[in-house]
Amino acid sequence: MTDALLPGSTIGILGGGQLGRMLSLAAARLGLKTSVYEPDPNAPAGQVCDKLTTASYDDLDALRAWAADVDVITYEFENIPTDALDALEALKPIHPNRRALAVSQDRLTEKAFLTDLGLKTAPFAAVDDAEDMAEALTEIGAPAILKTRRFGYDGKGQARIKTAEDAEQALADMNGAPAIFEGFVDFSHEVSVIAARGTTGEVACFDPGENVHVNGILHTTTVPARLSAKQRTDAVLLAAQILNKLGYVGVMGVELFVTPQGLVVNEIAPRVHNSGHWTQAGCAVDQFEQHIRAVAGWPLGDGQRYADVVMTNLIGDDAHTWPELAKQPNTQIHLYGKAEARAGRKMGHVNRITKA
Amino acid sequence: MTDALLPGSTIGILGGGQLGRMLSLAAARLGLKTSVYEPDPNAPAGQVCDKLTTASYDDLDALRAWAADVDVITYEFENIPTDALDALEALKPIHPNRRALAVSQDRLTEKAFLTDLGLKTAPFAAVDDAEDMAEALTEIGAPAILKTRRFGYDGKGQARIKTAEDAEQALADMNGAPAIFEGFVDFSHEVSVIAARGTTGEVACFDPGENVHVNGILHTTTVPARLSAKQRTDAVLLAAQILNKLGYVGVMGVELFVTPQGLVVNEIAPRVHNSGHWTQAGCAVDQFEQHIRAVAGWPLGDGQRYADVVMTNLIGDDAHTWPELAKQPNTQIHLYGKAEARAGRKMGHVNRITKA
Repeated sequence: MTDALLPGSTIGILGGGQLGRMLSLAAARLGLKTSVYEPDPNAPAGQVCDKLTTASYDDLDALRAWAADVDVITYEFENIPTDALDALEALKPIHPNRRALAVSQDRLTEKAFLTDLGLKTAPFAAVDDAEDMAEALTEIGAPAILKTRRFGYDGKGQARIKTAEDAEQALADMNGAPAIFEGFVDFSHEVSVIAARGTTGEVACFDPGENVHVNGILHTTTVPARLSAKQRTDAVLLAAQILNKLGYVGVMGVELFVTPQGLVVNEIAPRVHNSGHWTQAGCAVDQFEQHIRAVAGWPLGDGQRYADVVMTNLIGDDAHTWPELAKQPNTQIHLYGKAEARAGRKMGHVNRITKA
Repeated sequence: MTDALLPGSTIGILGGGQLGRMLSLAAARLGLKTSVYEPDPNAPAGQVCDKLTTASYDDLDALRAWAADVDVITYEFENIPTDALDALEALKPIHPNRRALAVSQDRLTEKAFLTDLGLKTAPFAAVDDAEDMAEALTEIGAPAILKTRRFGYDGKGQARIKTAEDAEQALADMNGAPAIFEGFVDFSHEVSVIAARGTTGEVACFDPGENVHVNGILHTTTVPARLSAKQRTDAVLLAAQILNKLGYVGVMGVELFVTPQGLVVNEIAPRVHNSGHWTQAGCAVDQFEQHIRAVAGWPLGDGQRYADVVMTNLIGDDAHTWPELAKQPNTQIHLYGKAEARAGRKMGHVNRITKA
């Protein structure tokens, strides 16, 4: 506890979207201030943080000035430019660390890291050109998915390869970006573990949630997930293995495919995660507070689940249903303060307590 | 729902203490902005609201400018100067309404209002001078308490009268302020009902909590309270009666003494209340969100209790125990962002889930 930030200290958050917003709200509960760095002056976190810096991630002077006034730096998204990280790291501690970012910024590096740990992933191969593609098709085969190695999320930068005939178009869809070919995994459902590691090395995991995606975007997370006791233990142990190997500090989202052969790691996100939003309604300490506690050097909180919850994302026009949602029993509404409900945009979510 | 404020609207809050802070955090969850008016530039709510106006409650120009940019006005404390209310009321709706404020600002008016409703209160009498005092001693008798009619809270502005001999000193303690003599109530324990009424007249009550005070300041609130089923029903019905009579919109705290002769109303507070902080850990929608929903014209949320909770206030130096508290299981910490832990100052609270 010697390195714990005192109440009144300031957490610097790179990124002012809904995750930054909910991190700011959680920090406030603990008496900690937040200073958000974000290019968009109308970003959601700006309405609730103590201080907002509006500047680009390329503006190293602005980044340095921002960092000078914070006690620790964290982030709500993994695609932070390397130059920005170099400038910030010279000034203040960054949690989670650079290694976690490097691993998760590149799908190929991530898969290699996971398989090196002895964890199962989808079969994969690097695809930079037609030759690589042909080789991957031969070795792994279709159906498969081609994904850009970097900057993809919510189904963006992805192309399905149902048969070998789709391969050429899929490669063209990458627009020349380095890609990863991921083979088919025959899974029954997807779950995710929201895991946290503190500065002293203690690890805590929330109960795994079961995820359903629609159009490549998370639709619902349900707790408890359909898992055997052994699968539940496996999920927690493999998450801990990842965090420990990275010397990680903060909350990580670990997406897992449930297969007859065991749990297969889909991807990891070095931050609070959409599939952990249910913790706001089911736990005394939610994933946002858990992340803040970790990066502030506080003891991790008790994330024990004391209710069954279904989290449903409000995407685009879904947000306009709030008057109806507000009337529903056992329902917690979260809206992110975004002015425009564009299609595919995450506008909010609801947590429904289905059993307490 | 026609008058419901849309997400993105701004709630104006008079007062930026911990209640204003937690109201701001709750509003943010619903996608609503808050604009706080508060004389102290370092007040807790300033760190989390969208906009902070630092000015005196006597500065009518500043009040009017502030009100121009909000959609509805609410408050975190009841002692708002009449001139300020007059200026604001001409510009924007104020919830809860003036009548609720008038009743609760003056202990004598409040007691008269409650007894007119047919509710039980402590025996009381107005005491402006020694003659009134002598009469009250004869009619009601000691032990009793003398309280200023206005501006008292957390045990301030009160003098105990154990025997008739204390009467002279008690009167002197009032410093000439109009006072109310309150007779002894033989109660087993105190409970409070946090009740809400929406713009359409719907009423919702949280489960009553049982309060323990130390040195005149709330120490713990425990749910469930020790109440029979009939007492629980009586508590909810009398709270609803008060809200309906006042045409109230918002959350009210109703403190009740439990006696063999039934429930006796101790006092009412036209705002979110310290004894309702447990709702943050025990309900999908807490008292702060309930108040915001009400004043914004939204449907009231489901305040069903799904855990047993003990709320403990952190007073003064108690706040320095946060490193130990942070390690405790089932424990939610709330710190208010106050820089200095003065004696008797409410610095934060913890909610402990004792059974889920």
